[in-house]
Amino acid sequence: MDLLPHLVDLNADYARAIDNDELERWPDFFLDPCLYKVTTADNLAHGYESGIIYADSRGMLQDRVTALRQANIYDRQRYRHIVGLPSILARNGTELRVETPFLVVRTMRTGVMDLFATGRYLDVVPCDDERQSLRFRERLVVCDGARFDTLVALPL
Amino acid sequence: MDLLPHLVDLNADYARAIDNDELERWPDFFLDPCLYKVTTADNLAHGYESGIIYADSRGMLQDRVTALRQANIYDRQRYRHIVGLPSILARNGTELRVETPFLVVRTMRTGVMDLFATGRYLDVVPCDDERQSLRFRERLVVCDGARFDTLVALPL
Amino acid sequence: MDLLPHLVDLNADYARAIDNDELERWPDFFLDPCLYKVTTADNLAHGYESGIIYADSRGMLQDRVTALRQANIYDRQRYRHIVGLPSILARNGTELRVETPFLVVRTMRTGVMDLFATGRYLDVVPCDDERQSLRFRERLVVCDGARFDTLVALPL
Repeated sequence: MDLLPHLVDLNADYARAIDNDELERWPDFFLDPCLYKVTTADNLAHGYESGIIYADSRGMLQDRVTALRQANIYDRQRYRHIVGLPSILARNGTELRVETPFLVVRTMRTGVMDLFATGRYLDVVPCDDERQSLRFRERLVVCDGARFDTLVALPL
Repeated sequence: MDLLPHLVDLNADYARAIDNDELERWPDFFLDPCLYKVTTADNLAHGYESGIIYADSRGMLQDRVTALRQANIYDRQRYRHIVGLPSILARNGTELRVETPFLVVRTMRTGVMDLFATGRYLDVVPCDDERQSLRFRERLVVCDGARFDTLVALPL
Repeated sequence: MDLLPHLVDLNADYARAIDNDELERWPDFFLDPCLYKVTTADNLAHGYESGIIYADSRGMLQDRVTALRQANIYDRQRYRHIVGLPSILARNGTELRVETPFLVVRTMRTGVMDLFATGRYLDVVPCDDERQSLRFRERLVVCDGARFDTLVALPL
């Protein structure tokens, strides 16, 4: 199985779920347990473990979606992910390590757009069961920079 | 026929025609009759029919190119489309429904660059004749936000 | 050999070398001798030969990396390339002519992000030896606009 087209689909669909206000689909892109962490390139370079956002189960991801819904966050802002092509860094029989660049533009309800974040995804994606769709075991979101000016924000 | 590479080519060539000042090629990406409409995510969510730009024939698209040439619009601004990977949403024997994210940066003659628009293309692309290149029956340009500060603008 | 996936890999890896602070790998993406030139769309349209950056050997590219290291440029700024899909413009038995759009976001040490450059790569890529990885004989970087506010900058 050539996995690159499947990785492209996974990334495109992940971005569409967030950008098109289908947040309830977001946890389904992850296995359970999982690791989803948003951090910065500086934190990563210094070996700091703490992230800006952290979840290690699908339940924690679902809780985050619930919180975002209660805050009506999507009414106030939306994202547009432009995701580059995935690079497969390593592959063994059971999983892939993948790096993918991204850029996110945020549009506020007022119509103001700004460059919200850029960076790269560092993913671990099991590929041992060809009958299953690909999902993330880990998605580490490493931001070059980001406008972390809100306590509640949509997922990256 | 695997259609994804053809959709990628269609989108890449469409963007090149606009960004590289080959506007006369732009109407040829559409069938005749067609639907080309630029609208916003808010308008689409509210079911408003009206768009910011509307054309339903290749002739109307050609008229728009003529108007842009008379206004020398390309001398004053240029675009750079960064188009994401197309997602095929539905497919029957004769046509595809496709969603593709985009971002457009505008560079003014003065050298000033800004983020001009982000959004997604919602396309209907007939695929019943393998001998023909793919063209748009419909291209709905749904902007998340955009700097609609000019009456005359290049196509998105 | 279908060359498009190899061109995609070449472009993705090129961008990763620059964005992930592996500048020493950058000269290896070129043949020797080569042509690497950064210019603007206006200069290209007027036929001006001079570029903002010019190198015609791998040694010149290596010298540039050395200068950037001595200036500790990466400590002060980093780039994120979002590279679109390559369009193969022409192909003969021994080389490809390729056009690829790009966008670069710059993040300063302070965390400030800005849109640094957009444009297109115009490449000449020999493809006569299937055993070798693809490399650039020529990479002409044609910027629509760019923030050339620093004398020393990372490669585009």
